[in-house]
Amino acid sequence: MKKIEELKNEFRKISRYGHAIALIGWDLETGAPKKAVEKRAEVLGELSSYAFELSISEKIGKLIEESEKEELNEDDKALIRIVKKEYEKSKKIPPELMREFSIVTSNAQAAWEKARKEKDFNVFKPHLEKVVELTKKMADIIGYKENRYDALLDMYEPGLTVKDLNEIIKTLKDELVPFVSKLLNEGKKPNDSFMKGHFDNKKQENLSYVVLDKMGYDLESGRMDVAVHPFTTTIGPNDVRITTRYREDDFRDSFYSTVHEGGHALYEQGISEKYSDLPIGEAASMAIHESQSRFWENIVGRSLGFWKNFYPEVQKEFEQFKDVSVEDFYKAVNVVEKSLIRVDADEVTYNLHVMLRYEIEEALINDRIKVEDLPKIWNQKTKEYFGIEPKDDVEGVLQDVHWSHGSFGYFPSYMLGNLYSAQLYYKLKEEINFEEKLETGDFKEVLNWLRTNVHQYGSKYEPQDLIEKITGERLNPQYFMKYLKEKYSKIYNI
Amino acid sequence: MKKIEELKNEFRKISRYGHAIALIGWDLETGAPKKAVEKRAEVLGELSSYAFELSISEKIGKLIEESEKEELNEDDKALIRIVKKEYEKSKKIPPELMREFSIVTSNAQAAWEKARKEKDFNVFKPHLEKVVELTKKMADIIGYKENRYDALLDMYEPGLTVKDLNEIIKTLKDELVPFVSKLLNEGKKPNDSFMKGHFDNKKQENLSYVVLDKMGYDLESGRMDVAVHPFTTTIGPNDVRITTRYREDDFRDSFYSTVHEGGHALYEQGISEKYSDLPIGEAASMAIHESQSRFWENIVGRSLGFWKNFYPEVQKEFEQFKDVSVEDFYKAVNVVEKSLIRVDADEVTYNLHVMLRYEIEEALINDRIKVEDLPKIWNQKTKEYFGIEPKDDVEGVLQDVHWSHGSFGYFPSYMLGNLYSAQLYYKLKEEINFEEKLETGDFKEVLNWLRTNVHQYGSKYEPQDLIEKITGERLNPQYFMKYLKEKYSKIYNI
Repeated sequence: MKKIEELKNEFRKISRYGHAIALIGWDLETGAPKKAVEKRAEVLGELSSYAFELSISEKIGKLIEESEKEELNEDDKALIRIVKKEYEKSKKIPPELMREFSIVTSNAQAAWEKARKEKDFNVFKPHLEKVVELTKKMADIIGYKENRYDALLDMYEPGLTVKDLNEIIKTLKDELVPFVSKLLNEGKKPNDSFMKGHFDNKKQENLSYVVLDKMGYDLESGRMDVAVHPFTTTIGPNDVRITTRYREDDFRDSFYSTVHEGGHALYEQGISEKYSDLPIGEAASMAIHESQSRFWENIVGRSLGFWKNFYPEVQKEFEQFKDVSVEDFYKAVNVVEKSLIRVDADEVTYNLHVMLRYEIEEALINDRIKVEDLPKIWNQKTKEYFGIEPKDDVEGVLQDVHWSHGSFGYFPSYMLGNLYSAQLYYKLKEEINFEEKLETGDFKEVLNWLRTNVHQYGSKYEPQDLIEKITGERLNPQYFMKYLKEKYSKIYNI
Repeated sequence: MKKIEELKNEFRKISRYGHAIALIGWDLETGAPKKAVEKRAEVLGELSSYAFELSISEKIGKLIEESEKEELNEDDKALIRIVKKEYEKSKKIPPELMREFSIVTSNAQAAWEKARKEKDFNVFKPHLEKVVELTKKMADIIGYKENRYDALLDMYEPGLTVKDLNEIIKTLKDELVPFVSKLLNEGKKPNDSFMKGHFDNKKQENLSYVVLDKMGYDLESGRMDVAVHPFTTTIGPNDVRITTRYREDDFRDSFYSTVHEGGHALYEQGISEKYSDLPIGEAASMAIHESQSRFWENIVGRSLGFWKNFYPEVQKEFEQFKDVSVEDFYKAVNVVEKSLIRVDADEVTYNLHVMLRYEIEEALINDRIKVEDLPKIWNQKTKEYFGIEPKDDVEGVLQDVHWSHGSFGYFPSYMLGNLYSAQLYYKLKEEINFEEKLETGDFKEVLNWLRTNVHQYGSKYEPQDLIEKITGERLNPQYFMKYLKEKYSKIYNI
């Protein structure tokens, strides 16, 4: 057997532990008995460390080395690129540090929850300090050329540096900040008062299945459940599960949760089968992942064309929209508002939230600010970006879970996802009569385009190479701005 | 650290893989996406073989040896007894044989399903022949004193031999066969025509939760789902899950499935926490397990007292019983009938089904009959026991899945479970005002008695030692006969 095949078999073996881990995670979020949770953490710990052990084994190292010498096709070359990078990184990190990181972040998460309950950042502070300390240590061990934060960024968006990112953000910010200001000051805010009401969960669930079906989500390779924080998880090939939630007072929340997670799931279901159970069979990056969910949530799901087709379904379930026109409904799902909470933000202001976090965490990791100053800095920046201030830390610095996990470097993905989605959108429009597809609700061609251009490749290409391959240029934030301006100038009459 | 503690830690580690395996199994039966099933089998295979590898490691062998030399308390002595027996057995079996067994039974199960579809035993025959061959080989390797079947029996009912079993069966049969005959020929069969109707699943589900709550099943340490074949599974401590099913035309099926599985679950939830994740924390035997489900299903759930309390709940959900008296309802859940299908059999004739299978498989394993003769022998014996004959193999020799799994030696547990449950019942009645508990629906003391006497011990005692410890005598089938006669003489007016 060729060494590359042996190597693949090793990864397939490791992936089996990954399946079990993913299933346990899914179970914990969707309905594991309350008292079982603690014990399950031990199981996750055991399986994860064994899988990690397998992944940094001498055997894998040797097989990578030997495979490199063989004649390889493009896919296998990409596989080697991915696993070699990961292997070398993982080998560098001392197991004790990994263990410490895992304990510290686990305690930090508990402290974060407590801090939120008590609305007091100080409860979280000493834990976060430890997390930041260890994260910096990790970054230094992994190594970087110019900026310590680059080591972290690369985990979520391979190849991206602070330098690139700052440039992207500068361009975006220069246009976005005045545009938001213009919208809010000169524009006419749509009426969305008719969106409040009582929405039966069962009816919302029906709508979820209808929209997922239209999108092309395959329920024989997935399922939908309820979770407090909606997410998508790939248990294994042909098993990509989504979760959603239902708010009885506003059905937009559940509907867009479903569509968003559906977008993630379509990506995972579309990765080429030949990459199954191999590291190349994972998404190109978190941002590319987010581009897919955002595409379906916003570019499809918040478009007028989509609602022209889908609105009758909603009217059928919820009588209260009987006398509301589809245009008014469309505007109501696109209200722009200054907000304190990222996860509730509209698509226009959302990126400002991400920038705020990115600026803070980059400075934190590079020792330009201290953990103890975070609440103050957070509130100042919120004032600067949104002109409003959190009334407490829960509305401010304590709102996201990410830092307690030590996921520094993750936030930019949320913004990049929006940018990628817009750049893909303009390319897709050149090749497909998108407006027609929206208005007929027939998304086969759209999905097929995404599958062919994005999904199938998994992580064969680094994200920026992928976007260049598809659109002919690297990530360009102007597309996103163009999209926002075209859409919201009409809605806000400016 | 004492060696026994090190040994326990090894088993705790192994148990973590067991948790993952159990969860995957549960998921497969309760709603994993259709297309995901095949891949999941690979995951199960990987995790199971790794867990098995850990269990027969030199390390465990050495720790057992060294622990034995330490001063041990009663619990730890029992633990050593259990793990040593298992270790020595497992070590004997060549890994290739294990692998072959797993492949052969997996194919056999597929063939069994196909044979059922085609109503043709011949499709299954060659596969079953291989399974029997390998099972005999296994039994010979494991070893036995008198009868090859003893090696198999011991896997499910530790310590029991064919000799003991034949004696039990003889006593039982001598009384049961004429009693059944008397019931059916001289008795007055109750009317149960009012049991047919349309029963909304959601209402059946409500009833399931009510009865489980009354029984004392803890939903914070478990959950209930729907599966084609109801089962109970222990994912880990504080996570004992049951499944049930709903037939829209007859609610008895789902109701008694729920109560039966609830009985199993109460056992698992009642095993002492100090045995968590250790082999001693498993049930004493399959028959003791079955005794618990049968106790709740039949002795509680098919008693007049129980229905005096519970009937209003059913009447509330299902209007059709408005004019049916509780006595008539009680009789209707206790109809005795000649039947071809074991799983649908009433509590009186059920054991006859088990005897039939036991007699056949014991003869098969000891080469007194051949696989090819099974359909003929099955049909003859059915005629002999029930006076009726299957119209095809699906109603006959193909009705159970067990042989395709190679689970020879399992069937007697079903019968022994009934016998144990009756023996426990008479002891329990001496100590608790059982009739009062039934009529008030307050089962706290009953459950507590079972917990104290049976559940908490896990497999600390071998089943017959346990029953002797509780009731002062070894397994005695007369209790079961006494129970049947007292109950059914009244119902059938004989």
